[in-house]
Amino acid sequence: MGSDTSSSSPVTHISPSPDDYRYSFGGPVAPLASVSPGSVIDLTTEDCFGGLVRGVADLPSVVCEFPYLNPVTGPIHVDGAEPGDLLAVHFADIRPARDWAVSTTFPHFGALTTTHLTAMLHPPLDEVVWLYDVDVEAWTCTFRARRSDAVIELPLDPMHGTVGVAPAAGEVIMSITPGAHGGNMDTPELRAGTTVYLPVNVAGAMLAIGDGHCRQGEGEVCGTAVEAAMNTVVVVDVIKGAGSGWPRLENDQFVMSTGSSRPLEDAFRISQHDMVSWVADLLDLDPLDSYQLVSQAGSAPTGNVVDTVYTMVAKIPKSVLGGHQAYEGVHDRLRRIGADYCASRER
Amino acid sequence: MGSDTSSSSPVTHISPSPDDYRYSFGGPVAPLASVSPGSVIDLTTEDCFGGLVRGVADLPSVVCEFPYLNPVTGPIHVDGAEPGDLLAVHFADIRPARDWAVSTTFPHFGALTTTHLTAMLHPPLDEVVWLYDVDVEAWTCTFRARRSDAVIELPLDPMHGTVGVAPAAGEVIMSITPGAHGGNMDTPELRAGTTVYLPVNVAGAMLAIGDGHCRQGEGEVCGTAVEAAMNTVVVVDVIKGAGSGWPRLENDQFVMSTGSSRPLEDAFRISQHDMVSWVADLLDLDPLDSYQLVSQAGSAPTGNVVDTVYTMVAKIPKSVLGGHQAYEGVHDRLRRIGADYCASRER
Amino acid sequence: MGSDTSSSSPVTHISPSPDDYRYSFGGPVAPLASVSPGSVIDLTTEDCFGGLVRGVADLPSVVCEFPYLNPVTGPIHVDGAEPGDLLAVHFADIRPARDWAVSTTFPHFGALTTTHLTAMLHPPLDEVVWLYDVDVEAWTCTFRARRSDAVIELPLDPMHGTVGVAPAAGEVIMSITPGAHGGNMDTPELRAGTTVYLPVNVAGAMLAIGDGHCRQGEGEVCGTAVEAAMNTVVVVDVIKGAGSGWPRLENDQFVMSTGSSRPLEDAFRISQHDMVSWVADLLDLDPLDSYQLVSQAGSAPTGNVVDTVYTMVAKIPKSVLGGHQAYEGVHDRLRRIGADYCASRER
Amino acid sequence: MGSDTSSSSPVTHISPSPDDYRYSFGGPVAPLASVSPGSVIDLTTEDCFGGLVRGVADLPSVVCEFPYLNPVTGPIHVDGAEPGDLLAVHFADIRPARDWAVSTTFPHFGALTTTHLTAMLHPPLDEVVWLYDVDVEAWTCTFRARRSDAVIELPLDPMHGTVGVAPAAGEVIMSITPGAHGGNMDTPELRAGTTVYLPVNVAGAMLAIGDGHCRQGEGEVCGTAVEAAMNTVVVVDVIKGAGSGWPRLENDQFVMSTGSSRPLEDAFRISQHDMVSWVADLLDLDPLDSYQLVSQAGSAPTGNVVDTVYTMVAKIPKSVLGGHQAYEGVHDRLRRIGADYCASRER
Repeated sequence: MGSDTSSSSPVTHISPSPDDYRYSFGGPVAPLASVSPGSVIDLTTEDCFGGLVRGVADLPSVVCEFPYLNPVTGPIHVDGAEPGDLLAVHFADIRPARDWAVSTTFPHFGALTTTHLTAMLHPPLDEVVWLYDVDVEAWTCTFRARRSDAVIELPLDPMHGTVGVAPAAGEVIMSITPGAHGGNMDTPELRAGTTVYLPVNVAGAMLAIGDGHCRQGEGEVCGTAVEAAMNTVVVVDVIKGAGSGWPRLENDQFVMSTGSSRPLEDAFRISQHDMVSWVADLLDLDPLDSYQLVSQAGSAPTGNVVDTVYTMVAKIPKSVLGGHQAYEGVHDRLRRIGADYCASRER
Repeated sequence: MGSDTSSSSPVTHISPSPDDYRYSFGGPVAPLASVSPGSVIDLTTEDCFGGLVRGVADLPSVVCEFPYLNPVTGPIHVDGAEPGDLLAVHFADIRPARDWAVSTTFPHFGALTTTHLTAMLHPPLDEVVWLYDVDVEAWTCTFRARRSDAVIELPLDPMHGTVGVAPAAGEVIMSITPGAHGGNMDTPELRAGTTVYLPVNVAGAMLAIGDGHCRQGEGEVCGTAVEAAMNTVVVVDVIKGAGSGWPRLENDQFVMSTGSSRPLEDAFRISQHDMVSWVADLLDLDPLDSYQLVSQAGSAPTGNVVDTVYTMVAKIPKSVLGGHQAYEGVHDRLRRIGADYCASRER
Repeated sequence: MGSDTSSSSPVTHISPSPDDYRYSFGGPVAPLASVSPGSVIDLTTEDCFGGLVRGVADLPSVVCEFPYLNPVTGPIHVDGAEPGDLLAVHFADIRPARDWAVSTTFPHFGALTTTHLTAMLHPPLDEVVWLYDVDVEAWTCTFRARRSDAVIELPLDPMHGTVGVAPAAGEVIMSITPGAHGGNMDTPELRAGTTVYLPVNVAGAMLAIGDGHCRQGEGEVCGTAVEAAMNTVVVVDVIKGAGSGWPRLENDQFVMSTGSSRPLEDAFRISQHDMVSWVADLLDLDPLDSYQLVSQAGSAPTGNVVDTVYTMVAKIPKSVLGGHQAYEGVHDRLRRIGADYCASRER
Repeated sequence: MGSDTSSSSPVTHISPSPDDYRYSFGGPVAPLASVSPGSVIDLTTEDCFGGLVRGVADLPSVVCEFPYLNPVTGPIHVDGAEPGDLLAVHFADIRPARDWAVSTTFPHFGALTTTHLTAMLHPPLDEVVWLYDVDVEAWTCTFRARRSDAVIELPLDPMHGTVGVAPAAGEVIMSITPGAHGGNMDTPELRAGTTVYLPVNVAGAMLAIGDGHCRQGEGEVCGTAVEAAMNTVVVVDVIKGAGSGWPRLENDQFVMSTGSSRPLEDAFRISQHDMVSWVADLLDLDPLDSYQLVSQAGSAPTGNVVDTVYTMVAKIPKSVLGGHQAYEGVHDRLRRIGADYCASRER
């Protein structure tokens, strides 16, 4: 770990050693680093299996040990962040760190299997590991069927399943759970080019990031994505007094709200309710007018339907916002900082 | 109504008079027309309010009468369709019939309000009507806020909320309900260029279509879309013995499965389960290999989260299917027939 | 079938032949009988398998044919019942007709198994039939384990899983589905001594009754109860203009509301919302005062969590109603008529 | 606080001062007391409002401060309890500490209102406080309507909404949340005479108890019960190596399993699945035989349908267990210890 100012913004490098990883958000934990608003953080993350599933014979239920799953890099103390503020985290770059990645079924985990919460009398589905070749040059990852013959190239679309801050009310929440604090939302929208807005609950926010995916279908149906260690660049900022209820996202084309709950319609309701409020704020609309506009202009991609609670995303194209900017254009500003850093890094 | 063969395929014109509309799927009803497989049907549909909401003062709870909501054009008897077959319905063209459309809140209906099923002690939200200008030349519809000042142009993206056949087991189901028979799925995927596959439950299938939308956000959050009467062209065919459990969709880029149920995760499960089965069939994959592939390659757009049951869509790009075609390419074949007819019609 | 007036009330006997059974509620069906309000109906019902599962080798998926499941006795036309009225059906006696009964698992049916709606990749649970000895004298039914050694005597607690009327909006609904029209609520509360109130949707109400259970746990967890043909006596009456939204129940100790929907919390909400309204009416309470009282005084037993939609019951002891009677004491009146008939029958 | 051995068992008295209360389960907190297995604990609990709502003008949203809601007395370190063990907590006596109690609506909390998770566009229901007179001699609490005229005496049925241990995986969970660690299950079954079994996750188990209710309807529909400070006597024991997945309950007539999740059917599934396993263990039954027996002999009372997750209870009469005892009769043993202590205390 270390800091530099090789670009115009301060840069912090974080590369945790195995003992540095955390498996939950919140609690009295010493930060891995402290950074100032406007900083670049150039960090590495381990995959959700802690890097222990390296081949098709490495069954996660054998090589991994509960609760040491889904390690996150952090917490990172963001100076000046206070409860009531909003933490902006722009993902400038997410890049697989290895030339392989894995996905698996896992006993009692997934959308099309009995789980510990949707409890049934069936034995678990077979535990199978799929090893993907990752080619960052070609920007592909390759699926190889295990019990049949297909080999299928899929485009890389790297993202982080998990990003969050310390929860409210002093709670400590496993890193596999999404919620108002962010966490394991597992939405493919969390790719490079996206800014995440997270309400701050404790001084310093205590940001942590993990669970990189080379790509992921919406819903993360089988329970795991194309899981990979990542080299990731984020830019952080603090928006004073703007703490909203649920994580929001923004990229160049869309603003997005998230909701995480069960049943899935409640996750949908939370995300849409937040979007109706946000659009009403941005366009100075009456709530029912905003409800109408969101109803006709929005999309509703699924995040995860496999974790301890489920995640839905409400998504509105910026084209309907008529130039009104969220949070005074912080997304554009952080994107430029991130781009500058990534460009300088390649020189 | 009438038939011609102005293109190479037989063509049936259906333009119901007010008494011809139906408000449910199933039951011992005389068909509005009988058509042969491979036929073009050039039809008109009324909007979900039966055309009775024509201005902001026309509150649907006043001008409409339950259960005379969501009229459908049909049933249409497709010759030779038998239980166990699959009815393919290709939407070649969907075009708003008027230069206006409407959307409304409706008491106890919508995703962000108490309803008769999600029963609460709140009074209903205010009933408000929004009138949209529709410009087919410019391919836009214009939102005008009612209680605030915004005027926002949105692109047209016409689709049908409702398409279905007579249900199984002799049931008669209101046209506002989606299910295994199709019905009111309210997914924006049901636009021109899409083929819908519906399992046949009775001789002749008894197809009916309605609920045109100039456009609709995913989820149909406020309960209604930009509702419009439509001029629509479909091409139908019968695939013998291919009756599957739930409606499927196909366009040039994607194959899609639907599921309709509550809670929303069950609609998700149905659609994903069907897609896992379908991809396994198409690629000759083991079910767990298909589960894995669908998990990484699929998307899961929301249909409706407001009707009596909710609808989710599972969507896979054809690029991962390696050239394997669904149902021996019927989609391409029907698309060509539809395009030929639409071209001939414009001459 | 036939009528007599051996007691002070008219009596209709209905004993359907196999072809007389119906498998749905609603539709243009000739009534099996017409009765006047205040009548006694002395009827027989077949079990949910149509009597075809008679031993442990009779697997229902083999001997039964969809949709010929859950036969109901009816419809019975109740003279003078009109839409907007309430049909009162008092169960005076429910008595197993044979000295055996059956219960089974059934593929893709039950609360602890993947189903067609909660779709998963597991194969179905094993299909097993349990044959119960029924001893009406001892008032017991005897469970014999099939794959282990236990033999356990359980008290009889006979009830009907299914009672309903023709649905609203011209719908025809399979007899295995519960809803606002009654149907397959599968609550053990529907035992002798209970009056069911059903909103009337069509002239004559078109009552039908079936699915007798020697006993049933709450939830009907495995999907079937101790299924039996029944000899049953009901007394019917019509309460003009009192049609409420959902079926209500009353016995000597409790008033009850039902709700049937998914997810289960929506069934709970419907039943509790109706109970809050009902108690407010009975005690002339403000809705929030009624909400408070119901919250502290009520119970919420589970109906079914296995059918196409689930059922919950809200239950309030009459002791908190301070002598206020529902529907001018119709329950007491019908109970006396029923008791008189049953006493006369035994003479 | 202090210990004595005035009966044959060690007795610990715990009466927290205001600063001693805790608002969550788990975390690095010093225990309020350490006790040995077999001990009696004679303790006091504050009501869910921290005693701050003392009259109808004390609106909880004004006088209470999030997250300082639902204080619990604890944690109590039980010597020798280790992960994998089961903690048995027998409630020997629960007695209201004051002659009044309160219940309220609370903004965005309750089963028949929009909440933060079931998010809607309605404003919250009115916030109203009901003050109950409590008469321990007469064993009644008296409801007084606030906006209408009723005064209704209800029997006392004191219970604790909240009892739990430190959660697994190092989580810290707000005391208003139920789960596998116990917590805020809010089931009326948790009355005196009941033994609760809680799986131990950390050394010492770290038991805490709170949220006394003079009585509560099933579901806790409006969000709060008849909330009261309590004087409570429990007896604790440790069952080595018997840690099961979810809290179980036992009284003289019934064994019970609980499940807490959303949607409500998942809470139901968890509780029934655990009961099927438990009955299979107790009677040495094949799982499907146990499934069948539980399906016919069980009841399924609702716990809460208002908290962050919902709770259901599966309940089986001991009469079907043929004398087989759970956990070698620990319930009977603890009941006797508790009765001895309570008798000695009254002398």
